[in-house]
Amino acid sequence: MSTSQEYIDQNKDKFVEELFELLRIPSVSTDSTKKDEIKKASQFLADQLNSLGLERVETFETPGNPIVYAEHCPHDDKPTVLIYGHYDVQPSDPDDLWDTPPFEPTIKDGLIYARGASDDKGQAFTHVKAVESYKKTGQELPVNVKFILEGEEEIGSPNLVPFLEEHKDLLECDMVLISDTAMFGEDQPSITYGLRGLAYMEVEVVGPNRDLHSGVYGGAVENPANVLCEIIAKLKDEDGVIQIPGFYDSVVELTEADRKAFAQLPFDQDAYKKSLDIKSVHGEKGYTTLERSSARPTLDVNGIWGGYQGEGAKTVLPSKANAKVSMRLVPNQEPKEIAQLFKKHVESIAPDTVKVKVTEHHGGHPAVTDLDFYGLKAGAKAFEEVYDKEVLFSREGGSIPIVADFKRVLGVESILMGFGLTSNAIHSPNENFSVKDFHRGIKTSAKFLELLPDFAE
Amino acid sequence: MSTSQEYIDQNKDKFVEELFELLRIPSVSTDSTKKDEIKKASQFLADQLNSLGLERVETFETPGNPIVYAEHCPHDDKPTVLIYGHYDVQPSDPDDLWDTPPFEPTIKDGLIYARGASDDKGQAFTHVKAVESYKKTGQELPVNVKFILEGEEEIGSPNLVPFLEEHKDLLECDMVLISDTAMFGEDQPSITYGLRGLAYMEVEVVGPNRDLHSGVYGGAVENPANVLCEIIAKLKDEDGVIQIPGFYDSVVELTEADRKAFAQLPFDQDAYKKSLDIKSVHGEKGYTTLERSSARPTLDVNGIWGGYQGEGAKTVLPSKANAKVSMRLVPNQEPKEIAQLFKKHVESIAPDTVKVKVTEHHGGHPAVTDLDFYGLKAGAKAFEEVYDKEVLFSREGGSIPIVADFKRVLGVESILMGFGLTSNAIHSPNENFSVKDFHRGIKTSAKFLELLPDFAE
Repeated sequence: MSTSQEYIDQNKDKFVEELFELLRIPSVSTDSTKKDEIKKASQFLADQLNSLGLERVETFETPGNPIVYAEHCPHDDKPTVLIYGHYDVQPSDPDDLWDTPPFEPTIKDGLIYARGASDDKGQAFTHVKAVESYKKTGQELPVNVKFILEGEEEIGSPNLVPFLEEHKDLLECDMVLISDTAMFGEDQPSITYGLRGLAYMEVEVVGPNRDLHSGVYGGAVENPANVLCEIIAKLKDEDGVIQIPGFYDSVVELTEADRKAFAQLPFDQDAYKKSLDIKSVHGEKGYTTLERSSARPTLDVNGIWGGYQGEGAKTVLPSKANAKVSMRLVPNQEPKEIAQLFKKHVESIAPDTVKVKVTEHHGGHPAVTDLDFYGLKAGAKAFEEVYDKEVLFSREGGSIPIVADFKRVLGVESILMGFGLTSNAIHSPNENFSVKDFHRGIKTSAKFLELLPDFAE
Repeated sequence: MSTSQEYIDQNKDKFVEELFELLRIPSVSTDSTKKDEIKKASQFLADQLNSLGLERVETFETPGNPIVYAEHCPHDDKPTVLIYGHYDVQPSDPDDLWDTPPFEPTIKDGLIYARGASDDKGQAFTHVKAVESYKKTGQELPVNVKFILEGEEEIGSPNLVPFLEEHKDLLECDMVLISDTAMFGEDQPSITYGLRGLAYMEVEVVGPNRDLHSGVYGGAVENPANVLCEIIAKLKDEDGVIQIPGFYDSVVELTEADRKAFAQLPFDQDAYKKSLDIKSVHGEKGYTTLERSSARPTLDVNGIWGGYQGEGAKTVLPSKANAKVSMRLVPNQEPKEIAQLFKKHVESIAPDTVKVKVTEHHGGHPAVTDLDFYGLKAGAKAFEEVYDKEVLFSREGGSIPIVADFKRVLGVESILMGFGLTSNAIHSPNENFSVKDFHRGIKTSAKFLELLPDFAE
């Protein structure tokens, strides 16, 4: 009988073929005409889990897309790991920018090209195969495992929190394991222990009740597009410091240890600038690029529009102008509270020559996992054994709101064990995932399950 | 034999019917599939002029649409009036917002509804009928008259200036008469003696070479949409004063007489605010609404766009952001010079974290006619005799670049004798022109030709 790690090496090609089956299903959650494909993808995963002989596999219907649940908990005295992943994918358009069809997975130069290859079918599937490496070699799982695989991550997981709340007992666990992030660099395993939160706002500035001729009215009637620009310009000062009163009040400042950790991360600022084709970086004064992009709060215009956008010239004084403005948050900023501060401030600085409407889109809590958590340590050790390289602990600038939700509802920490790379082009044409990382991901997951009991003691 | 004025009264209905023929031709110059209709409209006008027994009627081909020219100059010792008008019209869409079909002229409550009813077929046609009122009653014209009717006004008159330059001798005259503006109010004749110029710019701010995830890069990479807002916000101060160095250098300040004239114009600011649904007017400190909207230079965002404009939230840090910004100019601001000042200033205030591209769209010169010009005085007198009301002299905020062109190329002033109303909905659905104003327009034009020799002495 093989060991788990041997089984994974022996079945490398089979695992890729199985992943291809899943990648061929265009389970795009933003497209309501793809409901059958969503069902097919969830069924594929349920079948996979069923084939492993787990104690329980069940597909839960929700008001939206189904959640595939599985559990295998043979131990009373071992930790329980809840593995989270999602089987829905982003739309593939613009399809003409793909070198190969998005739902016909193709390997080129060691990379699997397909929508969902990395985000998140490929990464989520590593854990299914890791569990298989025990069950199919006649071994018991080293720990208790539960799976929760959802189909609505790309549309903001509207039914996940209600599901967590309704099934708190079922989902009881010691930690959540998620592979939906990227490693710090190629062959450089890393564990994300911090995520930023999000408050996403929309500002509408309304001036006159219709578009006006800028010759006839210009100069005498407030222009809402100019006002919108003035409001946005006032939200940050020249040092990149956000000017909303109270915005920084609950920010946990970086400790010396934090800053030291950041400074130790390998980061090539020249390569960074070159890859973005920018002359210089820019951000809050007094912080490094890595600190700015992952551990400090931000304010960015995500979209702005108003008036004439076509070719040439149209002499219109627009009736209104809009902007989407979002803020990335860090512990302990509360999205709802920040949204309120934003709204209050924008309303207070808007001139009374216009009407201003501020609305709130979805938000998300920031999350930071204690570096002393034994799950993190086990994860790091597993990575090191498979990759033969010391793990880096990093914080990411993006938001994964479910991490805060797991903490809040289930009371547990999440371990973000990403096997992807930032070059995976997730959400973009030519999404990819290396065969090598898929393989090492399975091995790392299996190793993690094996090592975890030692760290739990 | 009737007099000219009697003939006009007797033929009121016939004139409306003839105008209807012209209005039925959808001579939309922005639509290249309408070339035949353009030709039909020019032919209709040439036929009309030919039927009057003028000395010369000729249709000049241009690289674009034809220019209908006519002249009747029996006098050596009388002024020559060059009458300008245009027979092309704006597109009619959105057609479903019209109460009656745009090219099936209909009279309702005394208003002729049709595309071009006011702008400019109806207004231009008044002068053809005024000339008819002399020629068809066996009288000689009191002055020399030339017509120049073009078919490209709605697309910026690209072939008019070359035509003026090529036919300077042919077009020699003492003044230009144009009816393509609105009266100050119903039954309130007015002559526009000032027009603002225009410099129309586009600003593009480019940041990173692609749209970025605002979570991953936000805070560390300059956001071009934020920068664009900051640039625009810096272009005016809190008092509405434009901050471009040198912008006001060549502005001719309003004289006490100018300001007095403005103060005498009937203007109801509360009604103005109410009609626009705004709480307060806004503009350059120290000036009134009428001054701001017609005799002071301005700077307005006409359009702005960048990043995500759809529903909901997309966490993108846009690669670039654009704005169209135009400035209305007053004497003696030079559009080309102002465009250069704008470009230089925007480039100087843009941070070097982004690339900024400033381009220039079309411009136009401001124009003010000397209030002592005898043509203006004759126009005022003609208005007063027909409308039985004192004429107001006003300046308009919009631009009619050809007025400056006539001045520059032919060396003459223009008389803007508008018979329209601001309620005519030109460029909009349900464009209209009152039968009464059409009729009074013809009478005013004929009276002007009659009175002009007296004022010339």
